[in-house]
Amino acid sequence: MTLPASSARAEPAHDLFRRLFDRFAGCGRTAGGGVERLCASAADGEARAAFADALLEAGAETLTDGVGNQFGVFRLAGRRDAPLVMMGSHLDSQPKGGRFDGALGVAAAAGVGAALKRAAREGERFDADFCAVNWTNEEGARFRPSLLGSGVYLGRHRREAALACVDDDGVTLREALTAISQLGSDAPPTAPACYLELHVEQGTALETSGRTIGLVTACWGAAKFDVVFQGEQAHTGPCPMERRRDALLAAAYLIADARAIADRREGLVHSSVGRLVVLPNSANVVPAETRLSLEIRSPDDAVLREAAAEAAAAIGEAAERAGVVLARCERADRPVRALPEAAPALVERCATSLGHGSLRLATVAGHDALSFVGVCPTALVFVPSVGGVAHNEAEETADSDLQAGFDVMLEAATRLCRAGGVPEAA
Amino acid sequence: MTLPASSARAEPAHDLFRRLFDRFAGCGRTAGGGVERLCASAADGEARAAFADALLEAGAETLTDGVGNQFGVFRLAGRRDAPLVMMGSHLDSQPKGGRFDGALGVAAAAGVGAALKRAAREGERFDADFCAVNWTNEEGARFRPSLLGSGVYLGRHRREAALACVDDDGVTLREALTAISQLGSDAPPTAPACYLELHVEQGTALETSGRTIGLVTACWGAAKFDVVFQGEQAHTGPCPMERRRDALLAAAYLIADARAIADRREGLVHSSVGRLVVLPNSANVVPAETRLSLEIRSPDDAVLREAAAEAAAAIGEAAERAGVVLARCERADRPVRALPEAAPALVERCATSLGHGSLRLATVAGHDALSFVGVCPTALVFVPSVGGVAHNEAEETADSDLQAGFDVMLEAATRLCRAGGVPEAA
Repeated sequence: MTLPASSARAEPAHDLFRRLFDRFAGCGRTAGGGVERLCASAADGEARAAFADALLEAGAETLTDGVGNQFGVFRLAGRRDAPLVMMGSHLDSQPKGGRFDGALGVAAAAGVGAALKRAAREGERFDADFCAVNWTNEEGARFRPSLLGSGVYLGRHRREAALACVDDDGVTLREALTAISQLGSDAPPTAPACYLELHVEQGTALETSGRTIGLVTACWGAAKFDVVFQGEQAHTGPCPMERRRDALLAAAYLIADARAIADRREGLVHSSVGRLVVLPNSANVVPAETRLSLEIRSPDDAVLREAAAEAAAAIGEAAERAGVVLARCERADRPVRALPEAAPALVERCATSLGHGSLRLATVAGHDALSFVGVCPTALVFVPSVGGVAHNEAEETADSDLQAGFDVMLEAATRLCRAGGVPEAA
Repeated sequence: MTLPASSARAEPAHDLFRRLFDRFAGCGRTAGGGVERLCASAADGEARAAFADALLEAGAETLTDGVGNQFGVFRLAGRRDAPLVMMGSHLDSQPKGGRFDGALGVAAAAGVGAALKRAAREGERFDADFCAVNWTNEEGARFRPSLLGSGVYLGRHRREAALACVDDDGVTLREALTAISQLGSDAPPTAPACYLELHVEQGTALETSGRTIGLVTACWGAAKFDVVFQGEQAHTGPCPMERRRDALLAAAYLIADARAIADRREGLVHSSVGRLVVLPNSANVVPAETRLSLEIRSPDDAVLREAAAEAAAAIGEAAERAGVVLARCERADRPVRALPEAAPALVERCATSLGHGSLRLATVAGHDALSFVGVCPTALVFVPSVGGVAHNEAEETADSDLQAGFDVMLEAATRLCRAGGVPEAA
């Protein structure tokens, strides 16, 4: 027995997806209508529990690995060595973030898993199992770097190093996960045959084009710098200007320079300093230390290399100009990446078959799906963000777009699980 | 009966002073040898309790007023309407501050009071009472503005407004004082006939000159700005540069400009931004809001006016350049002030009589004593700071200088209390 189309099952699965999505929006909800659900916070623990409950209810086996990644494995194929189709995103948010970023993809994955499991129970034959996943610390807001959980899963970071990451209060990821009972010890599933992720666009390409489904074919490269300037704590009154070693002044020079690096390359470079910690941060004290995160992004590797080199030089110059010590300058580079054709093409076919217009586009921001490029066929799928608003409580996506995104992902996952996780065959 | 000189009593009083000073240094002691004793913190509460105990033990009546100022009144004159000689400083510190700033003056005041009370009990006749005082929130580190307790005492600030000041976590001064049981309800003593304060110099004029006692004859003026820039929270990745409203970029432009304003007037202007709060302060988020404290100081009112006007203009320009809203720009001006001659001249005579070299100098930093200028004769007296180091755990003053400072203050207070608090007669 085969079911003709996923639409016959879409209604109840969509209900679960929406119920779970709304539940997540209530975990760390802010007065401004967004969420504040920093990685391994109490609110994150609450959302994680809701996810685990939903997975169990839908018939999945749940696993939590050694960095808190949560997996819900839906056995569909009925054999031990079945390939796996994996779909997920993340439940952590930025401070005063939006309720769509990440949570949408996790809720959709649970909904898809539930629908597939029901179909299997009703007799549909599958050639792959399905796994819904929530990755730890995608945002890089509380702990840096970002994409930490998916990076550990794929061997890009060592588990022990990830657990030793500290937030700005000196709390380690290990301590934070332990505090919410989310430091697991389960072995995670082996690498999937195909990875899918549904996310909001965080830009305006879909909105401008009038299409509903975005197929990511490339990701901008980035150079991220973790910088510490060490000056000398002094009284802002009597200390002569020429004797000051002002760590905040160095940061100010650098922040202005970073902006100028982007302004000289209009549209080709995005730059920012989003995080700046000032010590001791008192009105009458010349700052002794500043710690900041600087990033340079570009869709072109040559431009990125040049701009990042300018940023690296600007860091040293800022320290010198302010007379402070450059105590740390760690750099992480992520080159421009193209996503292989197979999985996006499958999702494109699914969108077309369901009557939704689609668009191929690039993502500027990183997403967990990018961790899978080079490992297995990967589809990162966007639905529109109203006004492109992102990392902001005012994030919004229309209900009809959520529905369309879910339907397309369910269709793609159904076809993949029928076809052993091979997009070309699906 | 009169005692010929205070030196006969100096030894035990000096012991109390040193014991109390060392006790204060243990309240909020840091690993680096300094103290972190923010206003109305637990450590401040501990130091306040030690001060009150010492006052009671030495025979004072203790009072705590409605903003937490602590007074120890030593009845010496034996009549209800006796004038008051007041001496004090503050127990609050900067984050990672030094152990001398403020605490020296409070410990010395208690020691002086104890010595005078003993002398009175031994039969010495006085024409004034003495009061040792600890002023609340001199530093302006946790709550702004600085000089808050002495300002309320002298009617420069309203009590209710002072209690409503909030720290960066939104805790009010009222709540913080209540938490350490230091929100009193006693009526404070009426304004004194003369005010004395012993403090460390926080500069190098004494060290350079080889003198031990500094007599402050003027205070630099200052213009202090409390600034809030409001931008728009966004994703540092996809948000196009031209659409960003980066509140940290505005702050960076302003910090660099503030430095340039001082650099254009070498030695005549000191400027700084010591405090900068960034919201939400996450690596991948364009900052939505920055709050900062900017100050401009000068020994010349005309220069101050001009530099402060440039700073005010720079604030507006920084907002405009970064495309953000200047949501707050509050300014407090403190003109250059001269300290009338009488009280410093008395202390100078005392220093000479005890064989200590003295120097007349200006203070760049504000001190509680400045609150009394225009109210009563005021002597602000400095002892040397090794290397001029201030607002830093490494603050240091030689034991012999502490002893000299204490001896000179005891002599001056003794003479004043014999002469009804009138420095010209003392």
